[in-house]
Amino acid sequence: MKLVRYGAPGAEKPGLIHADGSIRDLSAHLPDLSGAALHPDALARLAALDMDALRVVWGDPRLGPPVAGTGKFICIGLNYADHAAESGMDVPPEPVIFMKATSAICGPHDPIVIPRGSEKTDWEVELAVIIGKPAKYVTEAEAMSHVAGFAVTNDVSERAFQTERSGQWTKGKSCDNFGQIGPWLVTPDEVADPQDLGMWLTVNGDKMQDGSTRTMVYQVPFLIHYLSQFMTLHPGDVISTGTPPGVGMGMKPQRFLKAGDVVELGIDGLGQQRQDVIAD
Amino acid sequence: MKLVRYGAPGAEKPGLIHADGSIRDLSAHLPDLSGAALHPDALARLAALDMDALRVVWGDPRLGPPVAGTGKFICIGLNYADHAAESGMDVPPEPVIFMKATSAICGPHDPIVIPRGSEKTDWEVELAVIIGKPAKYVTEAEAMSHVAGFAVTNDVSERAFQTERSGQWTKGKSCDNFGQIGPWLVTPDEVADPQDLGMWLTVNGDKMQDGSTRTMVYQVPFLIHYLSQFMTLHPGDVISTGTPPGVGMGMKPQRFLKAGDVVELGIDGLGQQRQDVIAD
Repeated sequence: MKLVRYGAPGAEKPGLIHADGSIRDLSAHLPDLSGAALHPDALARLAALDMDALRVVWGDPRLGPPVAGTGKFICIGLNYADHAAESGMDVPPEPVIFMKATSAICGPHDPIVIPRGSEKTDWEVELAVIIGKPAKYVTEAEAMSHVAGFAVTNDVSERAFQTERSGQWTKGKSCDNFGQIGPWLVTPDEVADPQDLGMWLTVNGDKMQDGSTRTMVYQVPFLIHYLSQFMTLHPGDVISTGTPPGVGMGMKPQRFLKAGDVVELGIDGLGQQRQDVIAD
Repeated sequence: MKLVRYGAPGAEKPGLIHADGSIRDLSAHLPDLSGAALHPDALARLAALDMDALRVVWGDPRLGPPVAGTGKFICIGLNYADHAAESGMDVPPEPVIFMKATSAICGPHDPIVIPRGSEKTDWEVELAVIIGKPAKYVTEAEAMSHVAGFAVTNDVSERAFQTERSGQWTKGKSCDNFGQIGPWLVTPDEVADPQDLGMWLTVNGDKMQDGSTRTMVYQVPFLIHYLSQFMTLHPGDVISTGTPPGVGMGMKPQRFLKAGDVVELGIDGLGQQRQDVIAD
């Protein structure tokens, strides 16, 4: 299934993308795409519904993030060997974990908002994993049974805030509208191999990132296992698994976003995002 | 007011500490101590209630964290000059921000759980500030009007996870039961000067930390202003403002927690916490 949340910010309703391309409303079947509704068993019950009988959502509503109630927005740093190289850093001996504020989460086509004082706002297309049931001390073999689905995310990053404003990356990763997720939460049955997905990002139509999850250093099952040694992962938690090469910080000369730019990004089978860049 | 949440984990009800020392139930007046209920105007309406008419909660219920719906658990690193020195680090030129997972939050007397594989679990008594209304790009002068109240927090930290397991402190700060908050959310009218509060922590009765918020480098109004330049602070967000000297990592020889230890900590006017240390 391709699950969505549609409507105004903070008032989204759950829905899914029907085979005919329409959005169908799921409000009668679950309160939201959060918590227990993300459990793989609950998703299996949704998949058994008569899709043709679901109400069509007419018009072209805004899409919100396809998951609600996210308690943790965990990111993996330097998880593509080539991206580490362009950042002038080594591949770490274990995954680097950092957090984005959950208040940064927004819909897939919501604007990238350049914060006041920013001169180095950058892009990062990433594969996000959404947790469906609690995971603590899980093995790699068990890990994928805790996944609700996958989504595209843009781990928008302010490089000066991240690296030139006193320790810890959070400061450059957590600004409002720095975490577009979606358009869809795609359930695992529709993703044949999450480690073989092409991914790309353009700025004003110029291809900046063109990679594949094949070159991910620490892969999805290992990341879930690894994170679960440090903390319990809860339904709705989002793990963004790192970005391939091609970010603005790594270019010579460096290139950063400015108001008026348009960013588009996508991952095979997970859909596309389009964002206008605006100033705050 | 001294606000509390009492009851089993995940099923806490809102209450307050009456002048007679009893817990009084607030369930009839607000759904929980979260979101809009934390707005200073909403708290003022609570304060106007007839306290004697509120139902007494009998027995000795568990206390949960005195705030719910926390979206961000933001910590300030190295914010006491002496603690920076014992950590072998300079006072940073701007505040160091890092995040603890909100899943680490627990009640003030809930155990400290040593995660598997941990050898360096440490303590940090801190003054926590709880946000009451949204704050974005606020000035220092406006900052305190966004505060719902203050609380004691124990920023439990696994030093090897934090500093020896590849970049970013989050990994050592986010384990389950690494964020005791409470016993109370104390409203600002009861805190004459948040920058003049004695604070202490003992392990098995031995005094380890004995400081004051007077020696905080970046003070509360500045921290709210500063953070609000990077992200919107929302009601229920918790800012833990750093710890004074006396953590186990800074001792010679270093001393860390082991199962069976008892940690007690408190801040003037904000109450005390007591935690058993157990293994996971």
